[in-house]
Amino acid sequence: METTKISHVAHLVELCANFGISKVVVSPGSRNAPLIIAFEAHPKIDLYLVHDERSAAFVALGLAEELNQPVAITCTSGSAAINYASAISEAYYRRIPLLVLTADRPIEMVDQGDGQTIRQKNLFTNFIKADFELPSFPNKEMRLISDQIVHQALDSLVTIPQGPVHINIPLTEPLYELQELESLPVFEPHRQIQPELSPIEKELIQKGWENSTKRLVLIGQLAYNSIDQNVLKGLIDDPSVAILVENTSNIQDFQKICHCIDRTLEIIQPDELADFTPDLFITFGGAIISKKIKSFFRKNKPTENWRVGQFLFVEDTYQSLSHSFDVAPETFLNYLLSLNSLPTSNFGGRWKQKDFMAKSIHDTYIQSIPFSDFKAYEVILDTLPEESNLHMANSSVVRYCQLFDPIPSVQYYSNRGVSGIDGSTSTALGLAIANQQRLNVLITGDTSFFYDSNALWNNYLPPNFRIILINNGGGGIFKILEGSNQSKQINHFVAPFQAKASAICEAFDVHYFYVNNDVDLETIFEEFYTFREDSRPCLLEIDTRAVENEKFLKIYFDKIRTSS
Amino acid sequence: METTKISHVAHLVELCANFGISKVVVSPGSRNAPLIIAFEAHPKIDLYLVHDERSAAFVALGLAEELNQPVAITCTSGSAAINYASAISEAYYRRIPLLVLTADRPIEMVDQGDGQTIRQKNLFTNFIKADFELPSFPNKEMRLISDQIVHQALDSLVTIPQGPVHINIPLTEPLYELQELESLPVFEPHRQIQPELSPIEKELIQKGWENSTKRLVLIGQLAYNSIDQNVLKGLIDDPSVAILVENTSNIQDFQKICHCIDRTLEIIQPDELADFTPDLFITFGGAIISKKIKSFFRKNKPTENWRVGQFLFVEDTYQSLSHSFDVAPETFLNYLLSLNSLPTSNFGGRWKQKDFMAKSIHDTYIQSIPFSDFKAYEVILDTLPEESNLHMANSSVVRYCQLFDPIPSVQYYSNRGVSGIDGSTSTALGLAIANQQRLNVLITGDTSFFYDSNALWNNYLPPNFRIILINNGGGGIFKILEGSNQSKQINHFVAPFQAKASAICEAFDVHYFYVNNDVDLETIFEEFYTFREDSRPCLLEIDTRAVENEKFLKIYFDKIRTSS
Repeated sequence: METTKISHVAHLVELCANFGISKVVVSPGSRNAPLIIAFEAHPKIDLYLVHDERSAAFVALGLAEELNQPVAITCTSGSAAINYASAISEAYYRRIPLLVLTADRPIEMVDQGDGQTIRQKNLFTNFIKADFELPSFPNKEMRLISDQIVHQALDSLVTIPQGPVHINIPLTEPLYELQELESLPVFEPHRQIQPELSPIEKELIQKGWENSTKRLVLIGQLAYNSIDQNVLKGLIDDPSVAILVENTSNIQDFQKICHCIDRTLEIIQPDELADFTPDLFITFGGAIISKKIKSFFRKNKPTENWRVGQFLFVEDTYQSLSHSFDVAPETFLNYLLSLNSLPTSNFGGRWKQKDFMAKSIHDTYIQSIPFSDFKAYEVILDTLPEESNLHMANSSVVRYCQLFDPIPSVQYYSNRGVSGIDGSTSTALGLAIANQQRLNVLITGDTSFFYDSNALWNNYLPPNFRIILINNGGGGIFKILEGSNQSKQINHFVAPFQAKASAICEAFDVHYFYVNNDVDLETIFEEFYTFREDSRPCLLEIDTRAVENEKFLKIYFDKIRTSS
Repeated sequence: METTKISHVAHLVELCANFGISKVVVSPGSRNAPLIIAFEAHPKIDLYLVHDERSAAFVALGLAEELNQPVAITCTSGSAAINYASAISEAYYRRIPLLVLTADRPIEMVDQGDGQTIRQKNLFTNFIKADFELPSFPNKEMRLISDQIVHQALDSLVTIPQGPVHINIPLTEPLYELQELESLPVFEPHRQIQPELSPIEKELIQKGWENSTKRLVLIGQLAYNSIDQNVLKGLIDDPSVAILVENTSNIQDFQKICHCIDRTLEIIQPDELADFTPDLFITFGGAIISKKIKSFFRKNKPTENWRVGQFLFVEDTYQSLSHSFDVAPETFLNYLLSLNSLPTSNFGGRWKQKDFMAKSIHDTYIQSIPFSDFKAYEVILDTLPEESNLHMANSSVVRYCQLFDPIPSVQYYSNRGVSGIDGSTSTALGLAIANQQRLNVLITGDTSFFYDSNALWNNYLPPNFRIILINNGGGGIFKILEGSNQSKQINHFVAPFQAKASAICEAFDVHYFYVNNDVDLETIFEEFYTFREDSRPCLLEIDTRAVENEKFLKIYFDKIRTSS
């Protein structure tokens, strides 16, 4: 195989391929030419060219999420590397294995007046799992060291908890020379042994569990099927356990689980709070979207608060953490269920009852309202094809979606590591590319959509990709945030310039659909979801700019709150 | 004045205004609402709303560059702040005073599972002049400390060498409450005394100068008029001094100065190198674009190499630095000229002679070639209205422009601190907004243009802004880089997806013009530069995709090299 003449780079690429990295998102530059040459030459690697590094890194994040394996990104030196940072922070807080390969000038050229040269070492220091730098001019001996560094970096990617890993790669000209690949040292991946609960932990769990009557489990963001449903069922069937989830947990049981936290919390009256505060509070999974549940637990403290899972650091989100169990959720649950303890109350039933009440008000209300943001979500979710992936952009979209019961067979995605609006479209695209068997639907707002319009600037938009753009004239989140109406100027100020989404679609060859009323909204989706003959994706703009959207949300919560 | 109830933020804004900050680029979020409220309430501050923080920070960079005073940017917490990083690195390497105000969660909420929360302290550590953090919950005493921190940060912005300064601002809810501004502590800005040359330095300069016969001064990027032309004239008139500049130096003298380094270097034959190597080599200003001149001096070392100016750190770009004089160029030049030394050779004349020869070949050649990238630059520069600002995007644009003599009365701009392609349009826009009396013309390539298309996503596109997009099908730089043709795949691979610039213009309400041949090119500019009745800016796409552009550049250098 003819590859780059820079041997340690050829080695790096071979080691990546042997390690199982099959997809690399490339943002081209001159300095990273040896990496591009070597990746392109490798038969086991698929390359994706994305010019905007910000978008490129989010596309890779989506690929890694769907494939459940590490994906590499590579760019040239200087600000190119800086543009990776946002997606890396998202990968860090969601423990996604992104391998970041930044080409650099030889280190002795840093701060010497050369172009595209910054201090790249430790560039991502605030949000990277591990950070490496290869030697600038490796001789034979140093090449071995370089190989070992690469091997260590690859291992760091996938040891649990996973996370993004950075290798800075100083490279010296000439950059474009080729040679046949020499033989390579072979490394065995280190094997990781899944941690088990210690006897002390087991005793602690047993005691805490048996002493509790009011048990509440809150499940944050999880990849689909990351907890075995049979294991979880043991917990779900215990009526003393209330289970609260968000759609991003990808866990569903409509009989026993409370799926819509905010609407359920709203129906609990102030004098009932004690009845709904658990003595044992257990959390699984990643980020929780609901601000209300965080506030609820910060004010109403449980006796015990256990956090279960393998994380990069300890978090005390609810300001009452008593123990962190650094094991897989299944390991923990298997032990808990092996205790064969009997239900100790109907605490779970009590929560579920509130959930049913809220749902009933929700169902009546949602049918009664006219065309608006809120109504649009109802119709979108009601008509979403089964077996789809639903991507929720940040800010108001992901919050609105939490008010609706999740849809069976749909998998839910959102960038809730850092919750930025900057890469939602690119991330959804990455997932859509990686699994073209499923329809991938992104719901986004106008600010998020224009922010990340460069997601469409590449050759990989697949036919199974759909964007639903809810255009409410921008800044919708400000109108629904508590207290923000105290500054009318802000509401006025944050409304963005009205760019034309239709023209963005034209620029990047995406089919464009538009609705601005109930009747069209109800009928558009059949055509919208039909695969196009030219295999291009589609965008639907739902224009609610003429509607006072926030009013319908305010009335909704008022109705729920005052229902009992 | 009614402002935010968060007093230390109201103080910060008042201190900024007193300090002379008059423009703030805002990217809205909830966490930075108190900052937006206070800036908006302030009568001395103009606010600009730009949603994409990457673009916002580059717009602010352009504003600061044109105004020659600090400009502030403010955004919400999390990845919003990360998106500032690229422009901050550019500001750092070009010593532009950008005040970066990032809102943050209270510090005790970092890494506790809240949304939009990362470790923001020291976020820009690799490229920030100074980094501060305000207290989270200041009481009266802490407010005074907060004021002092702000005062210190403001001073850090403008002490020479200037640079970007970051204040991280943790904020606690409620964020939207208002109150009347209380009375404020008043700070006097610290006065900075311009450094002078020491007696030892003076002796060193005198000796070095008088002992040298072959003197060469190389001037990199400088703001227009940053060296008094009368002071410079004394140097220019000395025939023993060769002066080489790039158009970004904004220094012009067509009789005595060599303006086009690459073409002049090309005509010097290998056996003449010793005759053209100075014994005394002096550099002023910022970055040098020419790779050839760097390579020339790294190979042909002068006896003495002096660097003059006030920089953030010592650089030895030419690998022969003997002294750094940390004074203003004028201070240095005034002393040098006070020596009243007589010319010691005709070294400067010898360089200028080569420059004339190269120019003559250039002029003949450029008239002979057909429609192509190279020809397009000739026509653009030939028809550019006087008194314009010319913005050169990075990669091939800024390199092509170096082959043409600069145009009298035109000021030249380019992001040569880090030389990224990510913010050229936004930076040019910032300058165009700040000085609407001058025409501002950006020349950009297709990759740079689409990369930063969010520059157009705001309400401030002024009528004096023109974009010339040279669309050669992308990756032009790869085709003109030495050695890159060894990997044909790369050239093929880097060609980007052909998005439609016309539709981007439609999306953001920009007038669109198109040419793809000589005849249209020669006639389009009169109409293109005419101000539009609707005050919207214009973009001209010059489509050279059908042309083998790199050929004309290769022949050009061949002709110059073999001319003597």
